Amino acid sequence: MERYDIAIVGSGPAGLEAAINGKIRNKNVVIFGNKDFSAKLVKAPLINNYLGFYDITGVELKAKFEQHINYLGITIVNERINSIYAMGEYFTLMVNEKMYEAKTVILATGVEYTKPIAGEEEFLGRGVGYCATCDAPLYRGKTVAIVSYNKHFEEEANFVSELAEKLYYIPIYEEEYKLREGIEIIKDKPLKIEGEDRVTKLVLSKQETPTDGVFILKDSVPPAQLVPGLEIENGHIKVDREMNTNIAGCFAAGDCTGKPYQYIKSAGEGLVAALSAVSYLDNKQH
Amino acid sequence: MERYDIAIVGSGPAGLEAAINGKIRNKNVVIFGNKDFSAKLVKAPLINNYLGFYDITGVELKAKFEQHINYLGITIVNERINSIYAMGEYFTLMVNEKMYEAKTVILATGVEYTKPIAGEEEFLGRGVGYCATCDAPLYRGKTVAIVSYNKHFEEEANFVSELAEKLYYIPIYEEEYKLREGIEIIKDKPLKIEGEDRVTKLVLSKQETPTDGVFILKDSVPPAQLVPGLEIENGHIKVDREMNTNIAGCFAAGDCTGKPYQYIKSAGEGLVAALSAVSYLDNKQH
Repeated sequence: MERYDIAIVGSGPAGLEAAINGKIRNKNVVIFGNKDFSAKLVKAPLINNYLGFYDITGVELKAKFEQHINYLGITIVNERINSIYAMGEYFTLMVNEKMYEAKTVILATGVEYTKPIAGEEEFLGRGVGYCATCDAPLYRGKTVAIVSYNKHFEEEANFVSELAEKLYYIPIYEEEYKLREGIEIIKDKPLKIEGEDRVTKLVLSKQETPTDGVFILKDSVPPAQLVPGLEIENGHIKVDREMNTNIAGCFAAGDCTGKPYQYIKSAGEGLVAALSAVSYLDNKQH
Repeated sequence: MERYDIAIVGSGPAGLEAAINGKIRNKNVVIFGNKDFSAKLVKAPLINNYLGFYDITGVELKAKFEQHINYLGITIVNERINSIYAMGEYFTLMVNEKMYEAKTVILATGVEYTKPIAGEEEFLGRGVGYCATCDAPLYRGKTVAIVSYNKHFEEEANFVSELAEKLYYIPIYEEEYKLREGIEIIKDKPLKIEGEDRVTKLVLSKQETPTDGVFILKDSVPPAQLVPGLEIENGHIKVDREMNTNIAGCFAAGDCTGKPYQYIKSAGEGLVAALSAVSYLDNKQH
């Protein structure tokens, strides 16, 4: 298996800037993200505080970023990493059953503005999960509810529906749905996850439905969930000024490290994280 | 006297980005610097790692920055701050005999790549100085040597020459000189400052000259010299992740806070410093 020098998780400004600097320093870099780069970026109506660009929309700025990474031959691998394990000399990054390996990792996963649903944290691992395809086999012949924050999770829902007896899909977005027949779409706001030992019920604002499991699909998996053992402080990944996390060889940059949530702060940190990773790699070689 | 909300010292990417964010947050901002913004920036042959711009020269990037600050109505005050004093509720910024006041200060002074001349630190305050115009009256009728790293210090030399009996000007740059008659230009490399109680001699590679004082004029005054009491760590201003220095209300951003010396790292820190200053000001009002 190819072992990358630097694996970057997230394709917002922090991830992109990290990739650019890793590439310029001749490292073998992979960046996991999606073609929109950052859901937050493309929705920004007007940006005036990214030095060098003014009176610019998020979509326009995204196009500038895209030209830049294309110019350097950087491509984004359209995968959503579910978990990352420190193996000592390297890291293993899991995408469902698929695996990647890298000597260093840069977490640039952003933040979700959504609050957890009542019961989400309580039942995590006992019917609540963040990776539907990972756990789908557990729900063969059972009932599953998927709360989805993004259209691109529809594929994951379609896959789960092949195994589950019944699938409820609760989209928290307004777009056309491309879902397999038999999936029941509920356009309602999820309020609470209930159960005893395990999840038994999802309560929505206008109805409730019995279920064996609830998957909550957001673009960023909570970092502590993504990397077991990662130190979190006040809800953000704890980093020092060199963007080191508490795990050697694992760095972080951007919104996931704390406020202010601003593009150029993220990009600046992406650069620092990349150069710290380069320095970590170069020191290991001697 | 007008008391600014935020005084920014330095007009490189950190200072400019700080000014933009202070302005957008409706603060009364002043930025001290020079029309080239940053000597380092305009000399950069090619920049590829500032996300959104690629294959761009320093001069071109400077033009983008200039359009941006012009768009927001930000102008740079062409002054070189010599010292900054924390007065409790506010700061006093001195430019020779002129004074400015501000409630908060952001230091974005960059770094000098030049090593000190042998004897420079030893004789500091005993014949060695960084502000020729400040100390000129001390050298009335005496001999002074000025080691100058930038053409724009020629004015300062001209002023000193009105008071000094003899002035040697040692330019560490290649440009046409506009100096008053009587100033002796020495095109040679300064090696060592010598003396006993006070400076008596400047030794250059091909000659030496007796002198009562040596002024070393660089674009950035060493930060500890600029702000008495400022905490320095490994040659850089010590800051935390919010860009606080050890002095309340005094923030720092960019190269002066440490490596990597890169534009987007500086700009990102400028944003963070500005928002920290805004938050400091807003908390004071309640």
